[in-house]
Amino acid sequence: MAVTSPEVKKALEVIFAADSDIYQTRGFQRRIGYGERPALVIIDLANAWTRPGHAFTCDDMEVIIPTNQALLKAARAKRIPVIYTTTAYQDPKGPRSDTGMWSRKIPVETLLEGSEAAAIDERIAPEEGEMVIVKKSASAFYGTNLNAYLHAQRVDTVILTGVTMAGCVRHTTEDAIAGGFRPIVVREGVGDRVPGVVEWNLFDIDAKFGDVEPVEKVLEYLEGIEAFTNR
Amino acid sequence: MAVTSPEVKKALEVIFAADSDIYQTRGFQRRIGYGERPALVIIDLANAWTRPGHAFTCDDMEVIIPTNQALLKAARAKRIPVIYTTTAYQDPKGPRSDTGMWSRKIPVETLLEGSEAAAIDERIAPEEGEMVIVKKSASAFYGTNLNAYLHAQRVDTVILTGVTMAGCVRHTTEDAIAGGFRPIVVREGVGDRVPGVVEWNLFDIDAKFGDVEPVEKVLEYLEGIEAFTNR
Amino acid sequence: MAVTSPEVKKALEVIFAADSDIYQTRGFQRRIGYGERPALVIIDLANAWTRPGHAFTCDDMEVIIPTNQALLKAARAKRIPVIYTTTAYQDPKGPRSDTGMWSRKIPVETLLEGSEAAAIDERIAPEEGEMVIVKKSASAFYGTNLNAYLHAQRVDTVILTGVTMAGCVRHTTEDAIAGGFRPIVVREGVGDRVPGVVEWNLFDIDAKFGDVEPVEKVLEYLEGIEAFTNR
Amino acid sequence: MAVTSPEVKKALEVIFAADSDIYQTRGFQRRIGYGERPALVIIDLANAWTRPGHAFTCDDMEVIIPTNQALLKAARAKRIPVIYTTTAYQDPKGPRSDTGMWSRKIPVETLLEGSEAAAIDERIAPEEGEMVIVKKSASAFYGTNLNAYLHAQRVDTVILTGVTMAGCVRHTTEDAIAGGFRPIVVREGVGDRVPGVVEWNLFDIDAKFGDVEPVEKVLEYLEGIEAFTNR
Repeated sequence: MAVTSPEVKKALEVIFAADSDIYQTRGFQRRIGYGERPALVIIDLANAWTRPGHAFTCDDMEVIIPTNQALLKAARAKRIPVIYTTTAYQDPKGPRSDTGMWSRKIPVETLLEGSEAAAIDERIAPEEGEMVIVKKSASAFYGTNLNAYLHAQRVDTVILTGVTMAGCVRHTTEDAIAGGFRPIVVREGVGDRVPGVVEWNLFDIDAKFGDVEPVEKVLEYLEGIEAFTNR
Repeated sequence: MAVTSPEVKKALEVIFAADSDIYQTRGFQRRIGYGERPALVIIDLANAWTRPGHAFTCDDMEVIIPTNQALLKAARAKRIPVIYTTTAYQDPKGPRSDTGMWSRKIPVETLLEGSEAAAIDERIAPEEGEMVIVKKSASAFYGTNLNAYLHAQRVDTVILTGVTMAGCVRHTTEDAIAGGFRPIVVREGVGDRVPGVVEWNLFDIDAKFGDVEPVEKVLEYLEGIEAFTNR
Repeated sequence: MAVTSPEVKKALEVIFAADSDIYQTRGFQRRIGYGERPALVIIDLANAWTRPGHAFTCDDMEVIIPTNQALLKAARAKRIPVIYTTTAYQDPKGPRSDTGMWSRKIPVETLLEGSEAAAIDERIAPEEGEMVIVKKSASAFYGTNLNAYLHAQRVDTVILTGVTMAGCVRHTTEDAIAGGFRPIVVREGVGDRVPGVVEWNLFDIDAKFGDVEPVEKVLEYLEGIEAFTNR
Repeated sequence: MAVTSPEVKKALEVIFAADSDIYQTRGFQRRIGYGERPALVIIDLANAWTRPGHAFTCDDMEVIIPTNQALLKAARAKRIPVIYTTTAYQDPKGPRSDTGMWSRKIPVETLLEGSEAAAIDERIAPEEGEMVIVKKSASAFYGTNLNAYLHAQRVDTVILTGVTMAGCVRHTTEDAIAGGFRPIVVREGVGDRVPGVVEWNLFDIDAKFGDVEPVEKVLEYLEGIEAFTNR
């Protein structure tokens, strides 16, 4: 099983402490902070990632699913935009496949659009008015309408959860700050499938691309914002 | 019925002749020419545009549909990428609708993703391995994976048909040349719903953004290219 | 000289009246309206377009320049973001030119980045803190950081002026609404170089992509908004 | 000085070995391979990164600069497109700064467009016909014309070097594969400023986004390709 061992965790913490010293001396690792109009973006918590037995299966769902359930409840109470992504293809295996170059690196040929594997996990099922974006790349923004959708809703803050931390969540976070949003990555809401990568990618992100925050603080923030109203 | 009258056509021809003089003196209206690896991109020939009774219904389907059938036959013979678009929304009418700002200009609130209205016209039904892109904006490229898909297929030429000329076909053509493709717009394969706009937008495009070509020449070109092979 | 003659104007008005009937019956030509946080985006009012003797020279500068001066004054009074574009290339004529496919249609090989021709007209010179974007395509958004910049400034409304109406202003307007902004095109602030194209493209835009407004109303709107403050 | 210590390197190798077992069992870590038309993209080897005394100063220039010199020589021999990036801002410190949200995380307020700090290091100075892209975000593709430029040149393979590995090189690699290119990251040509991040990010990339290759193999590949010719 893919758990980060205590030894590995300790080794990583030693590295991160040394790196943080340099980053802080140089003026990195600043706090981006929360804005006024957030959206919740849940990356790839579809069955191929949340359930056992797939090439993409991730760990820690016993923490990730309840964390996302709590965030969904808070988000819905304030009617903020909720967006789910899944990664799937109309023609995963054909000679002109829409997997593009990615099938040359990872097993995306297993992800068929419309299949059970590509459907959002029913434990966090989308409600009416919530978007499900079928993306083809790691980032929720790349080759999708997400940027335009969030902009039309005047969203300034993107709360990010899901999997995988070393792939889709990381690329989405980088695109979010590049696009002019404040990215907030929820520590307990993200995961991956090999040891160490969650810790390392959260470290890189917190240094350069977005704030990594505990779920308690994010829930507290959501409680405090003004509810979205119809325009 | 929305036919461009002979008087209007004549008035437009007088304007275009005068404008062409200026353009040619200045070095506009060049020929972009055909490349080696084309794709066929069919814009919004879904029922809401091809069938009577919708807000989006267009004219001239008795020419547009057979033209597209002929192009599809030629494209499939050479196994070039074929991409259809439709414009539709997951939540066309809700307070956080994915119609964005467009519903403030045009009746996109009538276009539900997955509905019969949004489905590609069965007379030109997609075959296996052909893509159907559900877009939210006028351009087939904006907020979609089309650019990445075509690039991964090493496409250099985009053959464009469909509707509407003043909306989605025009914006798609502009994005195609901006993205580094050679846009070829098929004169008999495009249409619209009000008089004059097909003529005018074809004129603007041919001056600045892509070559407007008769279907015979496009079919001849497709006959002459090398068939796509599996990579 | 490239003036739209009274006969042409009249012919166009007849067409537009007929087309407007159809559009309004179908639910097009809606008003998008003004938002709360505008930016002023001035397209290609650089010397190659505003001064005589260039391939790109446009008409009507005796109206366009004063209109933009008035808009700049109003925009600066409220400290809203002001963005200028120019179109220019690092290597306009080389074998690996950054003109891409566009030099196959129009004379962009005359536009060198850093040249006097590509500089913003000094009558509307940028002030400190105003952006100058060097773009390679028609749209001010395509292949530039404009979307991200406006989003980070929480802009919801894009006031558009400049040239050419059938080229860069049109494509920019289409991208603006696609991106979730409210596009407002200022009638007296835009122009082109051949007869009829200003009228026609304003007609298409007002039907589908943005509101075409007289400068008086835009100035009145700018007077009424809250000034931008430091964040 | 920011060198990855032998202990840290060893700890990382233990993690990577365990992770690679899982990845390979699952079908990750495939070889994307080289295509036929490469471009060389050199990320942020400008003085603020390559010279001492800046917030952005990176390590290992004694290896990185010669590696890039060797790659440039090979690239120029075959006349493939060469693109340099730098990160800089027109208004790094103003209230409407084009640093967007990034200045809330890292010290981009030190990077003025046109300054010596933002200029490409003269040891690897651009030659005529080579592009210098001034980007605002981590990725060389985000908010720039790079994708369109490479597409117009029919490039299928992107050879990547530069800094930083945990920032701009990583994000660029992710965007490259998303865009349909084959990313090749040159191991000796990349760097960063804190221990461990080069190793970790190369590991993540090789698993999911691009091939990490030694410079010898890349030089050998460049020697073997057909030279670019004028189109």
